[in-house]
Amino acid sequence: MRSFRVELGTNSHEVHVGAGLIGELGRLAIRASLAPGKCVLVTDSNVGGRYAAAATEALRGAGFAPVLIEIAPGEASKSAATLGDLYDRMTSAEIDRSGTVFALGGGVVGDLAGFAAASYLRGIAVVQIPTTVVAQVDSALGGKTGINHPRAKNLIGAFHQPRLIVADVNTLSTLPDREFREGIAEVIKYGAIMDAAMLSDLERDLARILTRDPMVLEAMVARSLAHKASVVSADEREGGLRKILNFGHTIGHALEASAGYGAWLHGEAVAIGMVAAARLSERHAGLSADESSRLSTLISDAGLPTGLPRGAGNREFLNALKLDKKRAQGMVEFILLDRIGHALPIRLSFEQILAVFA
Amino acid sequence: MRSFRVELGTNSHEVHVGAGLIGELGRLAIRASLAPGKCVLVTDSNVGGRYAAAATEALRGAGFAPVLIEIAPGEASKSAATLGDLYDRMTSAEIDRSGTVFALGGGVVGDLAGFAAASYLRGIAVVQIPTTVVAQVDSALGGKTGINHPRAKNLIGAFHQPRLIVADVNTLSTLPDREFREGIAEVIKYGAIMDAAMLSDLERDLARILTRDPMVLEAMVARSLAHKASVVSADEREGGLRKILNFGHTIGHALEASAGYGAWLHGEAVAIGMVAAARLSERHAGLSADESSRLSTLISDAGLPTGLPRGAGNREFLNALKLDKKRAQGMVEFILLDRIGHALPIRLSFEQILAVFA
Repeated sequence: MRSFRVELGTNSHEVHVGAGLIGELGRLAIRASLAPGKCVLVTDSNVGGRYAAAATEALRGAGFAPVLIEIAPGEASKSAATLGDLYDRMTSAEIDRSGTVFALGGGVVGDLAGFAAASYLRGIAVVQIPTTVVAQVDSALGGKTGINHPRAKNLIGAFHQPRLIVADVNTLSTLPDREFREGIAEVIKYGAIMDAAMLSDLERDLARILTRDPMVLEAMVARSLAHKASVVSADEREGGLRKILNFGHTIGHALEASAGYGAWLHGEAVAIGMVAAARLSERHAGLSADESSRLSTLISDAGLPTGLPRGAGNREFLNALKLDKKRAQGMVEFILLDRIGHALPIRLSFEQILAVFA
Repeated sequence: MRSFRVELGTNSHEVHVGAGLIGELGRLAIRASLAPGKCVLVTDSNVGGRYAAAATEALRGAGFAPVLIEIAPGEASKSAATLGDLYDRMTSAEIDRSGTVFALGGGVVGDLAGFAAASYLRGIAVVQIPTTVVAQVDSALGGKTGINHPRAKNLIGAFHQPRLIVADVNTLSTLPDREFREGIAEVIKYGAIMDAAMLSDLERDLARILTRDPMVLEAMVARSLAHKASVVSADEREGGLRKILNFGHTIGHALEASAGYGAWLHGEAVAIGMVAAARLSERHAGLSADESSRLSTLISDAGLPTGLPRGAGNREFLNALKLDKKRAQGMVEFILLDRIGHALPIRLSFEQILAVFA
């Protein structure tokens, strides 16, 4: 087990990464000063079938009385309707201000259950127990929670820091291949924006990562989360530095939205977005063609898509881009690279962005 | 105009109280560093008919381009459905992270529009322009936002501090009598819990308050808000001290919920709740019978109800009490008085509470 603390003032909390940690969940929750008693365990029916029993047993062993709430798997559950169901179930379970929401699953469960916790009684505790690569290396840490609006992803949401993160890398062994690989896109991102040595290590270790060697995965998840923690600690509410984590995400989100949520996995859209952002970086930030190509090659070797789909740049895509959160006062702020391992925000006009689709 | 600053660290903001301030709204918003351009002005159709034109003109004069969003008046608008409509209108208006929500109205508008601002793009700026006594002396300040759930008032919500509060006491002149008087309940509360001299002044000035003398109202609103600001500054997230502001509210909320939202005005329910809490204070906190009676008399002289309705203590009431936010681990925390001008939290069992209804 590797453990570290995310420094966020009064919102500081522990992170634990290791194999078999779901069995330690109750003990770790007590150590994080969470009150035992009534609580909810939110998961989806896929993850729940595999891990809810173990999580429930671990929680009960430490004095928690979890009520299991299973949602349907998939992005469609990040909806106002599912959120409303959660509120109903939480009131039925008589969850009060001392209650905790345990979010066991991928990004959908974490975002939805996290926002339910953020907005129930003006905010109760949430513990993130991420079970996908994307969630373990990225979305579980940082406090971003929310649901989708039919017109834009994550339009409704709040910053609500977890009280604890428990990442059990054993859960990655049962992930479908496509879902596993999409998470590697987020790992590559940390190398690209802030750690050139990590990018080299990823090039070296890629084969062992793709065969899911647990030792390599534990190191990979912990290194990614530590990078994210350092950024989030310096900028909890995305006022400045934290924006660099959006590398690849502006185009990625617009692709997801315009293709209909679910056509692309998030990490796949981000992979394409990173390649497009690297091309924009060549034109507007001084990234060399060699470095740009090295990044595309790693993404491709990880089994991720790199090419903008035919029809990107269509009307739906532009509408989605227009509503993207990074837009302010008519320009779109992009995170670009001036070299591998270093990112910076640059404002681009729609015309400059469109040129990359030509 | 009386102005002061609410000290809340990075959430600190200005408060202005005076006659005719809606005409100054744009200028005051610019002074509070809000970005001109696209924004929304949320109001209800009653308030909007009287003041939306003046507010819009004032905002335009300072470079804002407000889109007017009118909701139906009344507590029923504090719903998930109306919140969803707001999100739709805000996306249609292409409100981005630099946009501001101007909330012009009473508590319903302030709570609803405040929560929309809290949860849109994980939080954008909100300006509170309260137009009722309750909103001006209480709900506009402190950052509590939210909507109702069919099973409990304010169950869904967030803490989201306004960037500015503008209280125009001229708007109080057109309030229906019943709505004006309910607000006086919250004013009396500040005297009861933290300012014995204020309670004496209220006894002395009550007639001029009820005839709505603007000079007396400006002083009354500013004094109430300053008290609330001092409590909120010391305890932004209701961890401790801020709880004293709930004097009269635990029973008040349960009455509102069990009678069906809207049967009682909030301030009327709080008035009854304060009288009941005073009786509990006699039994459990050492409040003298004379002081308890003096408080009841002032409430009654203000034209507010003091008697628990027949049937209080029924099943719906108890269910509502059980779900109340102040409940934690099986006991209900009540704010009681040990003397006029001083409040403290005391945990009571259901049996002790029920005894007051016998």
